[in-house]
Amino acid sequence: MTQERGRGRSSAVIVAVGSELLTPHKIDTNSLFLTERLNGVGFAVIQKLVVGDDPSGLSRALGYALRLADVVIVTGGLGPTADDVTRDVVAELLGAPLEESPAIVEAIRARFTARGLEMPEINRRQAAVPRGAQILENPRGTAPGLWLSAGEACLALLPGPPRELRPMFERLVQDRLAPVSDGRRVERRMIRTTGRTESHIDELARPIYEPLAARQPPVETTILASLGQIDLHLSTVGPEPEAGARVLDAAVADLAGVLGNSVVSTDGRSLPEVVGELLRRRGARVALAESCTGGLIASRLTDVPGSSAYVHGGWVLYSNEAKVALGVSRELIESHGAVSEPVAEAMAVAARDAANVEFGLAVTGIAGPGGATPSKPVGTVCLALAGTAGPPRVRRVQLPGDRERVKFQASQAGLDLLRRALLRATDAGP
Amino acid sequence: MTQERGRGRSSAVIVAVGSELLTPHKIDTNSLFLTERLNGVGFAVIQKLVVGDDPSGLSRALGYALRLADVVIVTGGLGPTADDVTRDVVAELLGAPLEESPAIVEAIRARFTARGLEMPEINRRQAAVPRGAQILENPRGTAPGLWLSAGEACLALLPGPPRELRPMFERLVQDRLAPVSDGRRVERRMIRTTGRTESHIDELARPIYEPLAARQPPVETTILASLGQIDLHLSTVGPEPEAGARVLDAAVADLAGVLGNSVVSTDGRSLPEVVGELLRRRGARVALAESCTGGLIASRLTDVPGSSAYVHGGWVLYSNEAKVALGVSRELIESHGAVSEPVAEAMAVAARDAANVEFGLAVTGIAGPGGATPSKPVGTVCLALAGTAGPPRVRRVQLPGDRERVKFQASQAGLDLLRRALLRATDAGP
Repeated sequence: MTQERGRGRSSAVIVAVGSELLTPHKIDTNSLFLTERLNGVGFAVIQKLVVGDDPSGLSRALGYALRLADVVIVTGGLGPTADDVTRDVVAELLGAPLEESPAIVEAIRARFTARGLEMPEINRRQAAVPRGAQILENPRGTAPGLWLSAGEACLALLPGPPRELRPMFERLVQDRLAPVSDGRRVERRMIRTTGRTESHIDELARPIYEPLAARQPPVETTILASLGQIDLHLSTVGPEPEAGARVLDAAVADLAGVLGNSVVSTDGRSLPEVVGELLRRRGARVALAESCTGGLIASRLTDVPGSSAYVHGGWVLYSNEAKVALGVSRELIESHGAVSEPVAEAMAVAARDAANVEFGLAVTGIAGPGGATPSKPVGTVCLALAGTAGPPRVRRVQLPGDRERVKFQASQAGLDLLRRALLRATDAGP
Repeated sequence: MTQERGRGRSSAVIVAVGSELLTPHKIDTNSLFLTERLNGVGFAVIQKLVVGDDPSGLSRALGYALRLADVVIVTGGLGPTADDVTRDVVAELLGAPLEESPAIVEAIRARFTARGLEMPEINRRQAAVPRGAQILENPRGTAPGLWLSAGEACLALLPGPPRELRPMFERLVQDRLAPVSDGRRVERRMIRTTGRTESHIDELARPIYEPLAARQPPVETTILASLGQIDLHLSTVGPEPEAGARVLDAAVADLAGVLGNSVVSTDGRSLPEVVGELLRRRGARVALAESCTGGLIASRLTDVPGSSAYVHGGWVLYSNEAKVALGVSRELIESHGAVSEPVAEAMAVAARDAANVEFGLAVTGIAGPGGATPSKPVGTVCLALAGTAGPPRVRRVQLPGDRERVKFQASQAGLDLLRRALLRATDAGP
């Protein structure tokens, strides 16, 4: 493999094979994992292709990819059926005739035998190896991977199913890609924020991260905004990952300084994980009272393993009767409306008291498309947090987007209200 | 545009432009929408490419794509900054010099003026049009789309943000792609099932869908399995969509016959939508009592607009205290364990009675990674449905996978228990 083909880093192209990936129903996601690992050993992914189970299309795609990159990673098309054309296409393209490997036939047969089955004749196709290819073992399936030289480039053929692909690729990276990357490594950091707009984060971060591009090694920065969350990504590439790590750690510290409590994590943890960790440290528990989020906050909190230590449970109070049954007064609902600060506050207090825990968190809002009024348009959401001391904190926000977007952002806002209360120094809060 | 370039249908290649789409963090999803619409007017998507904001890489990718397909759809890279290279690369590649369009400059300026802002000089870049290109209006943003001839093929340049891309592409399909597709149309049907394994569905469906390949027009079939759900996709392509529709409708009726109550929908509706519709028709309401699903069932049911008509609300009973507070006896929990059929049944009855509604649905299980015992491994889930008549229905299932997979499958199983009860002919059930 050439180290560089006209660029500063070794380059990779990922080719995903499978007609189902060209339908409106399914998307290639293996490439995210592959990209992370390739970047980790200094390879830049310069293009990605998706190709159907069509020999001539795949042949053209591979020819194109091999002219472009140092290494081409192909996923899929290694199964036993006639649809699985990757082996044949590669053999033809590289002029390397297929030869059956007795060792692979035996390994496949052994897998079937272990399950008390006979190997179907069709699985012999998976033992066909282009001459000169090296075998990549597949401990989790019948299709082995293959590693080939193709002129100046190298070609890896890997199975499509993630559980087979992932361990095989980890091994490939370690054994074959890391050694040729000449010590170049990507170092990455990520600062996750919530509660501020993208432009606000950008305004705060820009004075710090603009000069980073001129550091040694230079730092690449990207802001990725998703629903109710903005992530700052920082990375360096170079032969001295320690130098990169030092620059990045200093940059993260500077950025965390200006971003303050908007920073959810600098280690990749999600908002529910961070909230859970803060609750656990404080020995506190939370009960939810959810109207427009419909259980989403409870579900996200309990996605975290071990959350039973700090999640008591909650109420999904979708109807007014449910709210009244928990202890919200009917008069309050009638005079202020179910979506109002006083009702949110009453829900939070009722949840905290009924559960007999430290925190009650409540959300009530209009997720749409129905239910809006002139003074309360779709996206109006009231949140309240009742704690152990002081009056409840109450907020009203106006969230953009459709029903699912409003729901998710409302769940972010609720979790963030709790997070910020837990962060406050004194134990008197929230 | 040539009608066919060596294939039976007009062909399209989709090229997504943007360096962020080559990171481990972000994936192109516009292509799913584009594929659906392209298929709808008879275009097959034969390959997809993702390219960074790199002029030479984009130029090679477009050259490759234009040799391959009748139409190349490019998304992204039309913004005002120096990173946005699509216009320049296309002008260079096609030898069509960029010319500033005064009409576009004025349209962009008007957008800024309407918001009380001056147009930044940099936005003039978006008014640069390769000679001979036709303008595709963008009612939702500053970057217009462009439509160009490129030898035998055509090229559409569209903005990346979905809310700008979608209306523009709808228009493009209607005005320019549908007319050249010569009346070829894809007809699609989808049968959504739950509650059976993929191999079981395949076994039942195969005798029906194998002969479909020989029909006129031939029917293409695909089984797509996702968590707790298996979808059968059927499609025909041809100049007579009515003939295709007849073949498909007959096939759907035959398949629905053998698959019986496993069929969730034949019109694309999700399981929560179908459950909601069944509840609404019966004038019934449901209350949830969720332990291991942590509010996920309530959240999924309330993702559906109008669900307040039939979702009373629910309890997330994550702790034993929360279960006891709702009315599950402490002795029952102690003698059988929190994850047991009797506790699930008691939760369902308590939820139904406390909410005073027709159905109480309960789930308790071990989502993992902790909490397993030899007799109750991770994935053990007990479900119960208490209705208006007859004893509660109780089920115990063993679900594969990690915490999130178990949670989601448990929510599917719970919703499916309710769906099947609602489907039963008599009003005596469940």
